[in-house]
Formats: sequence, structure tokens, C-alpha cells
Amino acid sequence: MPQGKPAVVPDDGMTTKQRRNRPLLVVHTGVMKGKSTAAFGLALRGWNQGWSIGVFQFVKSAKWKVGEEAAFRALGEVHERTGQGGPVQWHKMGEGWSWTRKPGTDSDHAAAALEGWREIARRIRAEEHGLYVLDEFTYPLKWGWVDVDEVVATLRDRPGFQHVVITGRDAPPALVEAADLVVEMTKVKHPMDAGQKGQRGIEW
Amino acid sequence: MPQGKPAVVPDDGMTTKQRRNRPLLVVHTGVMKGKSTAAFGLALRGWNQGWSIGVFQFVKSAKWKVGEEAAFRALGEVHERTGQGGPVQWHKMGEGWSWTRKPGTDSDHAAAALEGWREIARRIRAEEHGLYVLDEFTYPLKWGWVDVDEVVATLRDRPGFQHVVITGRDAPPALVEAADLVVEMTKVKHPMDAGQKGQRGIEW
Repeated sequence: MPQGKPAVVPDDGMTTKQRRNRPLLVVHTGVMKGKSTAAFGLALRGWNQGWSIGVFQFVKSAKWKVGEEAAFRALGEVHERTGQGGPVQWHKMGEGWSWTRKPGTDSDHAAAALEGWREIARRIRAEEHGLYVLDEFTYPLKWGWVDVDEVVATLRDRPGFQHVVITGRDAPPALVEAADLVVEMTKVKHPMDAGQKGQRGIEW
Repeated sequence: MPQGKPAVVPDDGMTTKQRRNRPLLVVHTGVMKGKSTAAFGLALRGWNQGWSIGVFQFVKSAKWKVGEEAAFRALGEVHERTGQGGPVQWHKMGEGWSWTRKPGTDSDHAAAALEGWREIARRIRAEEHGLYVLDEFTYPLKWGWVDVDEVVATLRDRPGFQHVVITGRDAPPALVEAADLVVEMTKVKHPMDAGQKGQRGIEW
């Protein structure tokens, strides 16, 4: 548990309260699968704060993470019905972004990824969400489908109070540099080493 | 995304399907806070599978993780109302375990921790939950309040199909040895290094 003791007090002219309420850019990287899982765990807290949660999955297959999606959609419905927590939006590249549902983008992952980022950038400028989860977003960055410098500039200059969590292996150095918090998930021991295959409820 | 390619196929006489459906003992350790967050993310998937989720928090203060607790209680209510997902129980040592509410245990953390473990062991033998989250349970083990060998034996011999996730720093070697999956959360960069204090919705 954090004791709230920063190692240094920055000379930035902000009060502790101002500093405490600063929106964060968080990156979960490393070779282990806990990256997305921890991002969705973080989104649970944001939901409870009443923040608008926007999840954007940059994955080809819609098969993965259906458990988290179902749980968050249920929480979104709790919000609509009772006012508890915040609203939830969950968008996936794999089946075509829900705001377009354009058939055909499926065959061009680079175009689909860029389209996803353009929409996210638009929402960030419009301050539409309190917490953005850009799941597996490091891959389009790594493959050059989306320009890292443009992403970093948009995130650095984002207005208001918007948290952003980005997951995926091989986070680009410029993104790590811009981030406030970077966690690396390291494998110590994995059942696949011993012949265990991925299983329902644990891997998806 | 896992490609389902184990490095070796074990000579254990089990079919792939049997192996796929093996209950796992998972340990999230390391110095970063993502440990519990990722455990709760995992519980989201288990909830969606309809498993009974049992969370047991071995923490002194009830202040932390209120966001996750509220979200999971909401999911538990969704289950009760609609049948979606699984039932949820959330127990905390900090305010006295809910099955006793004995005043006084608060002053003796060692006794309270041991009492918590005894109840969990009883539930494991009775196969009461599909997924157990033993949050920050490594500390009572580390401090000798609960016997590591007893815990490992109980977990190793657990009947039926029960997943167990244990979080906390300094997981004892015998527990790591017994685990199927161990993930270490490593700090790359943390805002407290730059004077940032813990904040609402992110740290709790």
C-alpha cells in the first residue's frame, strides 16, 4: 500500500491537491498477459468514480477478452439503470469499429488501426471520456500504422482531466518517455512451459 | 495473444482438453501495485464464466480497493437480478471478517489472518467458490502468521475445479514452487518518483 511519500517534491508551483488530481498516462508493457487484465482492473476503479470509460481494442480477433467486455457492459447497464458508477463504451477493431461498421476495413488492419486512433484523438480533444483503455495499441505503433510522435503529442496536449492506459508489448521509447507510470509484466513461471494450454475464464 | 502452443507436451496421461480445464494456482508478486489490479481483472473473466467469486482481503485498512469492491458488488447484484455471470462474495480482514464481525480481532492481526485462512481452507475443502482471490495474502505468510506448508498442502490437494489467485510482495519460495503461473509486476517508471501522490480512481 502506498504511503503517499513522494521521493521528491517537484518545484512545479502546484499544490499537493493539484498534483494529486493530475490525469495520468499509464503504460502496461512486457511479455506477460497481465497487461490488459491490470488495465481493466484499473478501469473498475475509474467506473466506481463515475468516470466515462472508453475501451478501444486494437485486436484482430473479437474472441479474446469477452469476459471483461461482458462484465464492463454489465457495469455500464448498472450505471444506466441506477446511476451507480460511470457509463461504459467498448469498441473493437476486429469486427469493424462500432461507429462505422464499414465492411472491408477488416482486410486492411493498418487503415482500421489508424481510423481507430483518429476517433480516439477526436474524443480526447472533445474530452469525451474520463478513462481511455487503448488495449494492445503498442502494436499499430510498432508496425508504423499510427505515428508515435502524433500520438505522444495528442496525449501530452490533452485537455481537462482524462486518464489514458495503453497496453501491449514493446511500448515505443517515446511513449514510455511521455508516460507518468509504466509497469512491466514479467514472466516468472507460466503453465505453457509445462504444456498447459490457454483455458476458459483464465486466458479469455 | 497466446497461440496455444505449449513448449512441451507433458507426459501426464491427460488429454489436451483435460489439461486445458485444470484449475490454476496463480501468484501475482513484485513491487508494483498492478498485482491486485490484475487479479481483479482476472476475476472479471471468472465472473463472466458464471463462477462463484470469493475475494478475501488480508489488509488492515478498509480504505483501499473500494472501487473494485463496489464494482464487484454491483456485478454480484447483476447476477442475483438477471442470472448473468456468477455470484460474488467480498470479505475484508480490516473491519473484522464478515462471517464473524467479532469485535476485538482488529487488535490482533495475526489471529485475524489465521482465522481468515481457516475459513478459506474450509471453503476450499467444501468447493464453495470457482475463483478465490487471496489479496495481499503473502504478508501473513511472510510474517509467519499463517503456515506456508499448510497453505501449500491445502492448495495442492484442493478438490474439484477451483482457481486460486494470491497477490502480494515477497511470495514465499514454497508458494512460487507450487504455483502454476507466477507474474511479477516490475516498476519501470512511477509518478511518485516525480513527486506525484496517490490519487482517486487510480490508486484506490
